[in-house]
Amino acid sequence: MAALERTTTVQQTTTNINPDIQKERDIATFNVYELTTLIDCGEDRTIARRKCQSLALNDPELKHKPVAFMSRDERYTNAIKKAIYVTKKVQEYGITDMEEQHWYRSAATKQDTYGFALHYAMFLPTLSSQGDEEQKKYWVPLAQDLKIIGTYAQTELGHGTFIRGLETTATYDPQTEEFVLHSPTVTSLKWWPGNLGKTVTHAVVLAQLYTKGVCHGLHPFIVQLRSLEDHQPLPGVKLGDIGPKLGYASNDNGFLGFDHVRIPRRNMLMKHSKVDPDGTYTKPAIQRLSYGTMVLVRVNIVRQAFISLAYAITIAVRYSAVRRQTELTPGGVEPQILDYQSQQMKLFPLVATAYAFNFAAWTTRLRYIEVIMEINSGNVESLPELHALSAGLKAFTSYVMNEGIEVCRMSCGGHGYSCASGFPELYGLATPACTYEGENTVMLLQTARYLMKCAGKVSARDKLPGMMQYLSQTKRGTWPAREDSDMLNLQLLSEAYQHRAFRMVVSAAEKLNAELAKGKPQHKAWNNCHIYLLKAATAHCHFFVVQNFANHIKDTEMGNDVREVLTTLCQLYSLHGIMENSGDFLMDGYVNGDQLAKVQKLVAHLLSVMRPNAVALVDAFDIHDDLLCSEIGRYDGNVYEALYEWAKQSPLNETDVHHSYYKYLRPMLQGGKAKL
Amino acid sequence: MAALERTTTVQQTTTNINPDIQKERDIATFNVYELTTLIDCGEDRTIARRKCQSLALNDPELKHKPVAFMSRDERYTNAIKKAIYVTKKVQEYGITDMEEQHWYRSAATKQDTYGFALHYAMFLPTLSSQGDEEQKKYWVPLAQDLKIIGTYAQTELGHGTFIRGLETTATYDPQTEEFVLHSPTVTSLKWWPGNLGKTVTHAVVLAQLYTKGVCHGLHPFIVQLRSLEDHQPLPGVKLGDIGPKLGYASNDNGFLGFDHVRIPRRNMLMKHSKVDPDGTYTKPAIQRLSYGTMVLVRVNIVRQAFISLAYAITIAVRYSAVRRQTELTPGGVEPQILDYQSQQMKLFPLVATAYAFNFAAWTTRLRYIEVIMEINSGNVESLPELHALSAGLKAFTSYVMNEGIEVCRMSCGGHGYSCASGFPELYGLATPACTYEGENTVMLLQTARYLMKCAGKVSARDKLPGMMQYLSQTKRGTWPAREDSDMLNLQLLSEAYQHRAFRMVVSAAEKLNAELAKGKPQHKAWNNCHIYLLKAATAHCHFFVVQNFANHIKDTEMGNDVREVLTTLCQLYSLHGIMENSGDFLMDGYVNGDQLAKVQKLVAHLLSVMRPNAVALVDAFDIHDDLLCSEIGRYDGNVYEALYEWAKQSPLNETDVHHSYYKYLRPMLQGGKAKL
Repeated sequence: MAALERTTTVQQTTTNINPDIQKERDIATFNVYELTTLIDCGEDRTIARRKCQSLALNDPELKHKPVAFMSRDERYTNAIKKAIYVTKKVQEYGITDMEEQHWYRSAATKQDTYGFALHYAMFLPTLSSQGDEEQKKYWVPLAQDLKIIGTYAQTELGHGTFIRGLETTATYDPQTEEFVLHSPTVTSLKWWPGNLGKTVTHAVVLAQLYTKGVCHGLHPFIVQLRSLEDHQPLPGVKLGDIGPKLGYASNDNGFLGFDHVRIPRRNMLMKHSKVDPDGTYTKPAIQRLSYGTMVLVRVNIVRQAFISLAYAITIAVRYSAVRRQTELTPGGVEPQILDYQSQQMKLFPLVATAYAFNFAAWTTRLRYIEVIMEINSGNVESLPELHALSAGLKAFTSYVMNEGIEVCRMSCGGHGYSCASGFPELYGLATPACTYEGENTVMLLQTARYLMKCAGKVSARDKLPGMMQYLSQTKRGTWPAREDSDMLNLQLLSEAYQHRAFRMVVSAAEKLNAELAKGKPQHKAWNNCHIYLLKAATAHCHFFVVQNFANHIKDTEMGNDVREVLTTLCQLYSLHGIMENSGDFLMDGYVNGDQLAKVQKLVAHLLSVMRPNAVALVDAFDIHDDLLCSEIGRYDGNVYEALYEWAKQSPLNETDVHHSYYKYLRPMLQGGKAKL
Repeated sequence: MAALERTTTVQQTTTNINPDIQKERDIATFNVYELTTLIDCGEDRTIARRKCQSLALNDPELKHKPVAFMSRDERYTNAIKKAIYVTKKVQEYGITDMEEQHWYRSAATKQDTYGFALHYAMFLPTLSSQGDEEQKKYWVPLAQDLKIIGTYAQTELGHGTFIRGLETTATYDPQTEEFVLHSPTVTSLKWWPGNLGKTVTHAVVLAQLYTKGVCHGLHPFIVQLRSLEDHQPLPGVKLGDIGPKLGYASNDNGFLGFDHVRIPRRNMLMKHSKVDPDGTYTKPAIQRLSYGTMVLVRVNIVRQAFISLAYAITIAVRYSAVRRQTELTPGGVEPQILDYQSQQMKLFPLVATAYAFNFAAWTTRLRYIEVIMEINSGNVESLPELHALSAGLKAFTSYVMNEGIEVCRMSCGGHGYSCASGFPELYGLATPACTYEGENTVMLLQTARYLMKCAGKVSARDKLPGMMQYLSQTKRGTWPAREDSDMLNLQLLSEAYQHRAFRMVVSAAEKLNAELAKGKPQHKAWNNCHIYLLKAATAHCHFFVVQNFANHIKDTEMGNDVREVLTTLCQLYSLHGIMENSGDFLMDGYVNGDQLAKVQKLVAHLLSVMRPNAVALVDAFDIHDDLLCSEIGRYDGNVYEALYEWAKQSPLNETDVHHSYYKYLRPMLQGGKAKL
C-alpha cells in the first residue's frame, strides 16, 4: 500500500478539469486511492471491481442515450436486449464470482434493471433448493440454458408482508393427478413480481395447497405462463404489466391471475413436502430455517443503501464545489456554495453517514459468512442476533439513505430537480429499499421483538449473546465527556450511543410490561408500545453503526492520513447524531445542556475541518461518470456545458417547432393576426 | 350552519362504498361539511370552489387517460390543448375572481401545468407594472388577446437566487436606437422559465443594462423570440426545452440564449428607469418596494403546502382504512393497518399538520391583504415582519410537506410506489416548492436576519412590531405544565413553543455577537452561525403555526363537535412537535425528562382519540377523486378493483406479446428449442 501513488480515480478522464474542483483535489490531505481500497475492503477487490466495471463501460454495445429521453417501451426493450447480451458476456468472460458478476451487470445495466434478475436471484435458486432430485434434473438445465425464463410470484394485490394471508389456491385433483391453480378474488392476483408482465415464460408460484379438502399452507409450484412457441399467455392465465412506477421503468413488474389452470402433480416442488398421486400429503421432515437467505438479502440492502447514498453525495458535493452563488462581501467573488455552513451541514454528515454504512455493511456481511459457517457445523446460536440486527439495519440505513438522497437533490437547487442531475432516477431506483424485502416498520419491530427478548433475559439474569451483552453491562449515569477532546473521543461517543440504546430498550420493555400488567393481551400491549419499540430498535442500530465505525478505524490497517480523515468522519457522524437526536440523550440527564451546546459547537468545527477533504472523500467512492449518470456530478466539474449538451438532446427539441403548434397554438395566435 | 345536514363530500359518488371505509364514516363524531367550510374559511368559499371545480370535472372535453400512461410529448400537447380551452372557458363562464379562476384552472389541468401560467402570472403583470403608458397600451392588449404568449426569463444556467450575478447583457446602440441582447457565456443562458421552450412567442428578459459604457444593473426587456408567422425561433435566438424533470412533465421549461439580438429601444420597459434615444440613462424616481408580490407568492406556497399535504394524507388514511394486513391474534381477522399504532404515528400528526398549515395560510393571507391596505394608505411598517414570516413559513411548511408526502407514500407499502397511487406525480409537482420562489435555506436565513434585527432591538430596548413582541415579553423559566390537563392546554402548549423560539433567537444572536466580538467580519460571522440561525428561524415559524392554530380554534365560530376534534388535532400537532424536537425543549431545562415522558404518553393517547375521526378528517379536505388521481385513495375505498382496472391500461399491455419478444427473446428461447 505504501507504494501507491497519490492518484485520483484512474477510470476517469482527467483532462480539462474545472479549476474549482481541481483546487479541491489539490488540497486533500490523504491518498484517495488508499481510501477507495478501504471502502472496497481490500485492494484486490478494488482492482476486480474496476476490471468488471471497465468491461461493461468500455463496451460500445452497451452504450445508449440517457434513459431520461426514452419512453418506457424503449427502456423495457433496451433492458431485455441488454439482459440477453450481458448474460452471454458473463459466460464469455468467465466471470463466476457472484460479487464480480454483480459489478459487471450493474455497470452494464446502470439505471435499468437486469431483465433476468428474478430468474437468477429467485427462480433458479428456488428450483435448486425446493425441487427434489428428479425435478432439479429436469428444470435446472432448462433455466440455466435460458430455454425458459422464470420469476418468483409470491406477493398478491391484497397481501404483502403477511404471507399466510395469501389467497391463491392450488387444489389437488387425484382424478387427473393435477393441481388446479386458481385466483378466487381480485385481491389474490399475484402483483409486483419483477419481469413477470411481459418477459417470463414460467414462474414459481406460491399458493395455498389443498388436498383431500385440507389446506396445508403455502407451497411452491412451477407454472408455465406463456407458450414457448409464440409467447402467448396460456389459457386461463391472466398476465400483464402493473403499469408505471416511481422508478424501475425498465422492469415489467407484473400481475398474474389463474382461472382454474391445471398443472401436473410433479410441478409442485417436492424436496420438502410431498403430495402423492392419491392426494396424500407428507409434511417436511424438519421445518427448514430459511432465515439465512433473508439475512443475506438484508445485509446486501445495507450495502446498497451505502452505494445509493454515495452516488447522491458524490453528485451534491462535486456540484457544490463548482456552483458559485451570492456574494459574501459587496462586489466580491461569489463563493463556492460548499463554503456555506448551511450547505456543509446538509452534506458533510451524509458523507460521514455513507462511510459509516459502508463499514456496517462489511461487518455484517463478514459476520454473515461466519454465521453460515457456524450453522453448517451445527451451531445456530448466532443466527437470531444477526437476523435481528440485519432486519433493523436494513430499515435504519435505507430510511437514512432515502432522506439523504432528497437532501442532496434539494441542496443542488433547481438543477437537482432536472433529470440531468441523475437524482430523479437514482431516487426512483433506491427508495423501494424502504419497502421491499421487509417493510421498514415491520423490520424495526422484528428487531424490537428480539431486543425485548434480550431485555427479558437481563431481568432473568440469563446470558446474552454477542453484542447484546451491552444490555447487562451498561450502567445508568452521565456522560463523562467534559472537554472537547473527550467529546471527540470515539470510545466515549460510542458509549453515549450505547447508553441511549440501553435506556431505550429498557424503557420500551418497561412500557410493554406495564401494559401487560394492566391485563392487556400480548398483541394489544405490543401495538400500544410501537412508538417506544421503534425508538428502541432505531437506537440499537444507531449504536451498532457508531461502535462499528469506531472499531473499524481502530482495528483496520491504514495510513495515518487516512486514519485521521476517517476519525473526523466518525466524530462528525457521532456528534451530529447526538445533536439530531438530542432529546434522547438529554431526557434522562445522561447528557446535559452544556454538553449539548459543546456538541453543537464541535459539529460546526468539524464541518470546517472536513471542508478541504470533501471532494476527495466523495472521489474515493470511485463512481465512474458513466455510472453516476449526472451532468452536475461529473468528475471534471464542467457542469454547465454538460447540462446544455444534455438539454439539446431532449426529445421536445427534435424540431424547432413542436407539432402541437400547428394544431393548437397557430389557430389561436393567428385568430386575429398580430402585426409586430 | 346549524341547519347543515351531516353530509359527506357531496361531489363524490356514494354508491358501492367499501364497508371498511363506510364504517369509518359512520363513527365520526363531527359534521364533515361543517369542517370543510372552516377549511375553506367560509361556506360561501366552499360553494364557489365546488362550483368552479364541477365546471371542470364535469366537462367531457377535459377528460383524458391517466397521465402516467402518456409520453412527455403527449403530456405537453395535452397541456397546450387544455390551456387554450381553459382560457376560453374562463372567459365564457365569466369567472373573474382570481381565486375562482384558480379553482377552475387547477381542476381542469389537474396533474398537468397550465400552459399559459407564466403568461398570466408573470408576463402580463410585468408589462402592466413595468411598462409606461404607451408601452402598456401597445403590449397589454396583444397579451390579453393571446395574440402573443409570453414568459418571464430571469434565472440563468449558472445563476439563481443571487440575481445581481445574472450575466445576460442588453447594450444600447444609439446609432440604431436599439439594444443588443447577448449571452456572453454558457452560464448566462436563461434556464428554467416555464413555457419558454416550445410555447411562447415573447419573453420579458431580465438583463444587465449597458449604455455609454456603464452598467446600470438589471432591467426588463420585452423580446420577441419566435416568428408570429411560423413559430420559428428568430435569428440569433437559441431556444429549447431543458429536458425532463422529476415532475412538471407537461411543462416546456426552457433555455434561451442570445447572439447579439437587436430589439428597439422602446422594448425596454420604461415605467421606472429610462434610456433616451442618445443613450442617457435615467434612474427611477423612487426605488420601488417590490416586496409585496413576493410576500403574496410565498403565502400562496404555504397554502399550496397545505393542499399537497392534504392530498397525500387523504390517500394514505383512506388506504390504511381498507388495507388489512397481518393477524394480531393467531387465525384472527387481519386488522385495518390504520389500527397499528406505528401507522397512526406516521399519519395522524400529518393530518394535524395539514390543518395547522391551512390555518397558517389563511391568517397570513388575510394579514397580507391588511398590510397591502396599510401600504396603500402610506403605512409600510408591518411589511418587514410579514415578509420575514412569509419567507420562513414558505420554507418551514414546504419542507414538512415534502417529507410528509414521502412518509404517506411509504406508509402505503408497495402500492404507494406505483403511479396508480398518485404519489409519484404528486411528489414531482409539489417538491419544487422547496426550491422555487426562494430556496428554502435562503428563505430561513432571511427570516433569521429579521429575527436578529429584532433581537438587537430587544437589547436596545426598542419597540418591537406585532408578533415579535414575544422576544421582549418571554421570561426564561420552566414549563408550568404538570398534569395531563396542563399539557393538553393549548395556551400552555403555545407558551412552550414561544419559549423555545425565544431561547433559540437569543442564543443565535449571542453566537453571532460572539463571532463579531472575535473580530470576524459580518459575513463570516453570519456564515459561521448558519446552524443556529436556521434553528432560530424554524423555531419562530413553528411557534407561529402552533399559536395561530390555537388562536384559530379559540376565535372562530364553530360547533362543539368540530371544536373538539380541532382541539385534539392542535394538541397532537403541538405535543408531537415537542416530542420530535425534544432536545430543543430539554436543553435549557424548560421541559424536564418526566414532562417529556408524559408528552410521549399523551401523544400515544391522542392517536387513539383521533382514530375514529381519521377518515372523516381527510374527507373534510373535500378533494374529489378526479382531482386526487389515486386508485388507492378513492372515496369509495374499492382500491383493488381500481388498481387492476388501472394496470390493464398500461401501454405495455396493449398487446399480449411485446414487440421486443420477436427481436430478442424468441431467438434466445428458441435457440435450442425446449420441448415441454
